[in-house]
Amino acid sequence: MPIALDAMGGDHAPESVVRGAVLAHKRYPEQRFLFFGDQRELEPLLQHHTARGLWNVSEIVHTEEKVANDAVPSVALRQGKNTSMRLAIDAVKEKRACAVVSAGNTGALMAMSKVVYKTLPGIYRPAICTLFPTLRGDSVLLDLGANIEASADDLFQYAIMGDAFARAVLGLEHPKLGLLNVGSEDIKGHDHLRDAHQVLREKEKELGLNFRGFVEGHEIAEGKVDVVVTDGFTGNVALKTAEGTALMIRSFIRDAFMSSFLAKISWVVARRAINGLKKKLDPRKYNGAMFIGLNGITVKSHGRSDGYAFYHAIKVALELASHRVNEKIIEEIQLSGIAQSNGNGSNGTGKVA
Amino acid sequence: MPIALDAMGGDHAPESVVRGAVLAHKRYPEQRFLFFGDQRELEPLLQHHTARGLWNVSEIVHTEEKVANDAVPSVALRQGKNTSMRLAIDAVKEKRACAVVSAGNTGALMAMSKVVYKTLPGIYRPAICTLFPTLRGDSVLLDLGANIEASADDLFQYAIMGDAFARAVLGLEHPKLGLLNVGSEDIKGHDHLRDAHQVLREKEKELGLNFRGFVEGHEIAEGKVDVVVTDGFTGNVALKTAEGTALMIRSFIRDAFMSSFLAKISWVVARRAINGLKKKLDPRKYNGAMFIGLNGITVKSHGRSDGYAFYHAIKVALELASHRVNEKIIEEIQLSGIAQSNGNGSNGTGKVA
Repeated sequence: MPIALDAMGGDHAPESVVRGAVLAHKRYPEQRFLFFGDQRELEPLLQHHTARGLWNVSEIVHTEEKVANDAVPSVALRQGKNTSMRLAIDAVKEKRACAVVSAGNTGALMAMSKVVYKTLPGIYRPAICTLFPTLRGDSVLLDLGANIEASADDLFQYAIMGDAFARAVLGLEHPKLGLLNVGSEDIKGHDHLRDAHQVLREKEKELGLNFRGFVEGHEIAEGKVDVVVTDGFTGNVALKTAEGTALMIRSFIRDAFMSSFLAKISWVVARRAINGLKKKLDPRKYNGAMFIGLNGITVKSHGRSDGYAFYHAIKVALELASHRVNEKIIEEIQLSGIAQSNGNGSNGTGKVA
Repeated sequence: MPIALDAMGGDHAPESVVRGAVLAHKRYPEQRFLFFGDQRELEPLLQHHTARGLWNVSEIVHTEEKVANDAVPSVALRQGKNTSMRLAIDAVKEKRACAVVSAGNTGALMAMSKVVYKTLPGIYRPAICTLFPTLRGDSVLLDLGANIEASADDLFQYAIMGDAFARAVLGLEHPKLGLLNVGSEDIKGHDHLRDAHQVLREKEKELGLNFRGFVEGHEIAEGKVDVVVTDGFTGNVALKTAEGTALMIRSFIRDAFMSSFLAKISWVVARRAINGLKKKLDPRKYNGAMFIGLNGITVKSHGRSDGYAFYHAIKVALELASHRVNEKIIEEIQLSGIAQSNGNGSNGTGKVA
């Protein structure tokens, strides 16, 4: 099934979207692409000699409307039915595409995905989920801010969703799961964290989860677990704090090598090693956050994505789709018995897009 | 007034405590030191030729009891009245010392300090407060976990306390204050954060605060503000996440220079620059967290402190004492009108140790 790309979303669209697709086409030559956006802008980009192979597996769905970066989500939702973003999401809903990737307005993308897809049967609330680098390889973090608060049952469902994400994108059979908490002896963490801990302990065998209990902030980058589960407020702060710290150190490294003539000379020699490190921690490689828990796959690419970053978001979307992440979530949610009794999923039958 | 040192607390005590005091004596030659601990262990250390200058300004208060690292705080509180930690805290309470520094059991130190000092008049709850490195110099972060939850009024009081801490330790006249929040458009942050924002806006002029509104996780390391105010859960996660990320990158730098023969050669040349960076981010320089909001100054040194780390904790304590941090907090709390009506401070008169 083709993948839907919102070709008009993001600061460098549509060029970055086409460039990302060119890279994705090299890696997944069989994959087809549906570009949603302005045909007059897209056609020359896709017919350019660098995109020749891609052109043969691509189709453009023309629209002149797009969601503005500063649009209010509720307004975009009501008035944006013909935007490139919305039409791309509709294509997933109507099973004309396996997933959508957009670098556009986050709030609008979340609102539209929620309304069009609905939540998966049994899921209370969707979460935002991404990969990040650790000492022991990549790990998964959720929620990054879909909801600022999370009950014990929400955290339990996030654990199941994170488990499915890690299996799909990282190819792990039994990802290690951890609940983010504080380790001070005085303060044992919020009640709902203790409750979530207990539910996970009770259900881990039945569900085949590899639950490792609580983890602390410094254990995120240590890679103690493959999936770090937390509420959206804490997850958002933790991810951004880690990103800020990495940028700070990068800047200090640059300063250190510019601090004296001798240091500048040493830079010439050390450049190779330092650039290897820079490549390893390139934030573009960690681009692509999934709105997980919805009855369809939406991957958010960073608004400032270039082609290389957008390619990584496409890769995440394709891995999620091909590994049928949503089917896995539904199975585990049903097994767990922790699900909404009324089920506000799109059809309530467990059928997924 | 002398400073009280719990000479028996911490993994490397009493050697690390004496070594830290030797360094502090060099920097503050007029300062007197009260060592609480086993005289038979302390005397040889203090009479060693490396401590000769220190010996002249030191006094030992002998006790054979100490708080175990794994002691339960409530038990230490009841049964530990003759421990080195408790006697050192009592000395501050009784105005025989200006502040106490301990690398011992955190929970016990917090519990004893609370019970002996009581909270400052008008303060609801104490917080834990420390310095951390940013792109624009050092900043202050609180709460780090004294309380996992914080109301709007607590956050407002933390802002006042962080402001006083920054003025004392960083020597800033008008520290920039920020409330930690998430920036997603969908989720505008907890209600109590918005309420705290409003109170700070209302009171900033009257109190002479330099309030800069909300900050996000990545802005912590950017040094956008001098004081980052948050609840103890989020602060604990943010600080530990930043520490973990810094350690991860340090490990990656080491790997990068060990990755090949050529890289190893380049290390010989680059070592100087990298070691300069290592020195700049040395976590020992950021050792020393204050239990702020109590009617006496307690500074917690890391349990694994060596002498150099312990010296930095002493430095924090002396700066806080000499800049009369608690007097400043009381003044602002009284001005703000946001204070407990009954005042559970130790005396309720605004007099502080």
